[in-house]
Amino acid sequence: MSWIDIPAGSPFTPDNLPLGVFRHGDEEPRVGAAIGDQIIDLAPVASAQMLDGAQLFAEPTLNAFLALGRPAWRATRSWLLELVRNANDRDTVEPHLIPQSAVTMLLPFEVADYVDFYASEQHATNLGRLFRPDSEPLLPNWKHLPVGYHGRAGTIVASGTDIVRPSGQRKPPDAAVPVFGPSQRLDIEVELGYVVGTPSTLGKPVSVDDFEDHVYGVVLVNDWSARDLQAWEYVPLGPFLGKSFATSISPWVVSLDALAASAVPLPTQDPPVLPYLAGSALVNYDITFEVYLNGHLVSSPPYRDIYWSPAQMLAHMTVNGATLRTGDLYASGTISGPEKTQRGSFIELTWAGREPLVVAGKEHTFLEDGDQVTITAWAQSPDGTRLGLGEVTGRILPA
Amino acid sequence: MSWIDIPAGSPFTPDNLPLGVFRHGDEEPRVGAAIGDQIIDLAPVASAQMLDGAQLFAEPTLNAFLALGRPAWRATRSWLLELVRNANDRDTVEPHLIPQSAVTMLLPFEVADYVDFYASEQHATNLGRLFRPDSEPLLPNWKHLPVGYHGRAGTIVASGTDIVRPSGQRKPPDAAVPVFGPSQRLDIEVELGYVVGTPSTLGKPVSVDDFEDHVYGVVLVNDWSARDLQAWEYVPLGPFLGKSFATSISPWVVSLDALAASAVPLPTQDPPVLPYLAGSALVNYDITFEVYLNGHLVSSPPYRDIYWSPAQMLAHMTVNGATLRTGDLYASGTISGPEKTQRGSFIELTWAGREPLVVAGKEHTFLEDGDQVTITAWAQSPDGTRLGLGEVTGRILPA
Repeated sequence: MSWIDIPAGSPFTPDNLPLGVFRHGDEEPRVGAAIGDQIIDLAPVASAQMLDGAQLFAEPTLNAFLALGRPAWRATRSWLLELVRNANDRDTVEPHLIPQSAVTMLLPFEVADYVDFYASEQHATNLGRLFRPDSEPLLPNWKHLPVGYHGRAGTIVASGTDIVRPSGQRKPPDAAVPVFGPSQRLDIEVELGYVVGTPSTLGKPVSVDDFEDHVYGVVLVNDWSARDLQAWEYVPLGPFLGKSFATSISPWVVSLDALAASAVPLPTQDPPVLPYLAGSALVNYDITFEVYLNGHLVSSPPYRDIYWSPAQMLAHMTVNGATLRTGDLYASGTISGPEKTQRGSFIELTWAGREPLVVAGKEHTFLEDGDQVTITAWAQSPDGTRLGLGEVTGRILPA
Repeated sequence: MSWIDIPAGSPFTPDNLPLGVFRHGDEEPRVGAAIGDQIIDLAPVASAQMLDGAQLFAEPTLNAFLALGRPAWRATRSWLLELVRNANDRDTVEPHLIPQSAVTMLLPFEVADYVDFYASEQHATNLGRLFRPDSEPLLPNWKHLPVGYHGRAGTIVASGTDIVRPSGQRKPPDAAVPVFGPSQRLDIEVELGYVVGTPSTLGKPVSVDDFEDHVYGVVLVNDWSARDLQAWEYVPLGPFLGKSFATSISPWVVSLDALAASAVPLPTQDPPVLPYLAGSALVNYDITFEVYLNGHLVSSPPYRDIYWSPAQMLAHMTVNGATLRTGDLYASGTISGPEKTQRGSFIELTWAGREPLVVAGKEHTFLEDGDQVTITAWAQSPDGTRLGLGEVTGRILPA
C-alpha cells in the first residue's frame, strides 16, 4: 500500500492521511499529514511539486486550507494518496518525513464558533434520570430536533494541555446558599467533533444534502465538565461555567473522505423528523471510542447508533439562517451506548458517584488531581479494515 | 471645547470620541473617531504626527488596537482629546475629516466569543412570569450569580444589516407535534455590550478590580430573538436557534474612560454576593436607552439600576479559569425598568402579545416584515452633560 514503513496497529494507515499542525524544534508551525509514526512536512513537498496553494501548508493553522472547499480537499487527498503509494515520489517525500515523536502537535485550526449537541439518546436519557429524577428522562423536544447550545470557542485547547480544576459556585443539596470552591465533580464528555471548512451565507440555510460540501472532517473532543457548577447554574439559560473552562480536541483532522468507508445508515427516527431534517443519504459513522483513565480502559462508547446524524445537526444549526464560518466546530455531545461499559462520562459510568469504578484496585468516581484521561477512536469498515482518529489527552492539575 | 463645529444635540461630543471602522467609497476600511457629524480619519493623522502604532488605524478592525491594553487606550484618548481641542492641530486634522453621511460603517471589531447575560432583575422577573407562569419568576440561582450563556459570534452583524425573519420549529400550545415555518414571535432585546481588549491567561480568573484593564468600552446591542423557536428548544441546554440568526451592534465603541463621568454606584445586592463578586469600587453606568419602532419611540429602558455590574459579569465569566480574548463581547441581557414604558423587549412591552402597543394609530405585538427597530442611548453625568452611544438599527425582511 505504501513505500513508507507503517508500524502494525498504527491508526494512521495510508488511507487515512489526516492533517494537523506541528511545531518542530524552533521552526515555524506548519501543516503536516500523519502516516504511521511519521509526519509528511507538506509545505516543502508541495513546493517541490509546484502544487497550487502550496503556501497554505506553511500556515500555522488549517483554516486557509479548510476555506478552499470540497473540490480542493478531494484534490489534496488524491495528491496525498499518490505521494504515499507511488514509489516514484519517494525521493521527493522521504527527506521531509519527521518522526511524530520529534514534534509538538498544536491546535489544528482556529475555532470560530463552537456548538455542542446532545445527540446520543442513551446519554440524554441517562442525564435526564440523574438531573431530573422525577420527570420523563427525555424532554418533549428531544426527538424532534437535535438539541444543542453554543460553547466557548476561546477555551478549546490542544490535546496534552493540562486542565486546571475549575472553581465556582455550587449548591450542596442541604445548603441554603451556594458555596464557592474547586469543583468536586469534575468529569469528561467523550464526543466526536465536526470541522466546518466552507462558509455559508447569512439568511440561507444549509441543506442536509450539502453536509459534505461544508464539513471537512472530524476530531476527537473531550468536553471537560464540572457537574456541580453545571447543576447550579444551568437553569434557564443552559451550561456556562460548568463547561467553558476547557474543551480538548485531538490534533489530527480526519477527512470525511477517509471516513467514507465507515459510513452506516441512520437508525430509524420515530417520530418522523420534519422535512428539513430528512434525507435518503443520511449517514452516521461506525466508530468505536475508548476511554483510558491513567492508562486503564474504562469505557468503549460506540458512535454508530447515535440518534442524530451530523448532516442533521448541520441543517438544524443553520435552518434559522445562521451562517457557517471556516473553523466552526460542532460536536455530537457525549456518546453513550446501552451497556454500562459504553458510557461516555464518569457521571454515567459511576451513576453520579454512587457506583464507583474500580480501576487497578482503586475506586474512582469523578476526576481527582493528577488523573489523566486519554480518548482514542477507531473507524471500522465492513471489509474489516480500520482507521484511527488518534487520541485526545489531558491531565488534571489542582485548583 | 473644540475647533470642530458640532451640531447641537450630537451624541458625539468632544469628550466622547468613540472609535469605529468605516468604508469611504472604494478605499480600504479603516479606523475613525466620531465627532459631531464627522469622522476623523485616524490613520493619516496619526502618520502625519508620527504616532507610535499609527498603522493600527489603517486596519479593517479595531482588534489590533484593542489588544494594546489600557495604557495605550488612555494615551490614545489623550491624543484624540488634544486633536479636537487644540486649534494648532486644525491644519493637520481638517483635511482628514469625512462627513459621516459619506461613509458606510462596518462591524467595529472581529468578535471572538459572545456571552449574553441576564442581569436585569426586572427583565428576568418579567420573563419568568411569561415563560413559567406557575413558578417563582426569579430562579434560586439568579441573585447569587450573573446568569449567562454563550451566543453565536459569527452572526453578530453591523448596524443597518437587514434581518431575515428566521424559520424554525415551534410547538403551538394545542399541537401534538411541532410545526415548521417562519417565526411568528420575532422580538428585540435591548442590551449594552462590553468589548474586551486585553486577553487573560487560561486557568487565571480575572478579578472584579481588573475590569477596566480588560474592557475597552461599550456598544449597543440588539439581540434579535424568535420567542416561539426559543420556547420550544431552550430546555435543558438554553437558547440556541431562537437567538443565533442575528445580533446587531452599533458601529461606535465608546470607551470606559468616556463613560467614567456617568458611573453610578451599584444598587444593594441582597443576599450578599460571594467574595469573588464583591468589591468596593463596583459601578454601573447611568445610561438611558430609547427604542424606536418605525421611527416612533416605544420604550426608554434605564441601565443604571441593572442588578449585576459589568465587573461582576467579567469576574464570573472567568472565575473557572476561562480565558478572555481580544474581541470578546459580553452583553448585559435585556434592560427593563419597572415601568411599562421602560421594557426592553416586545414580549414584555405587549405582555406576550396580549396587550398590543398602539404606535401611530396601529396595533403592534411582535415584529412584522418591514418593521425597523432603532435603539439609541445616552449616558448622563451628575453635572447634566450627556454623551451619546449612537444607534443600532435593523429592518425585518420576510422569511
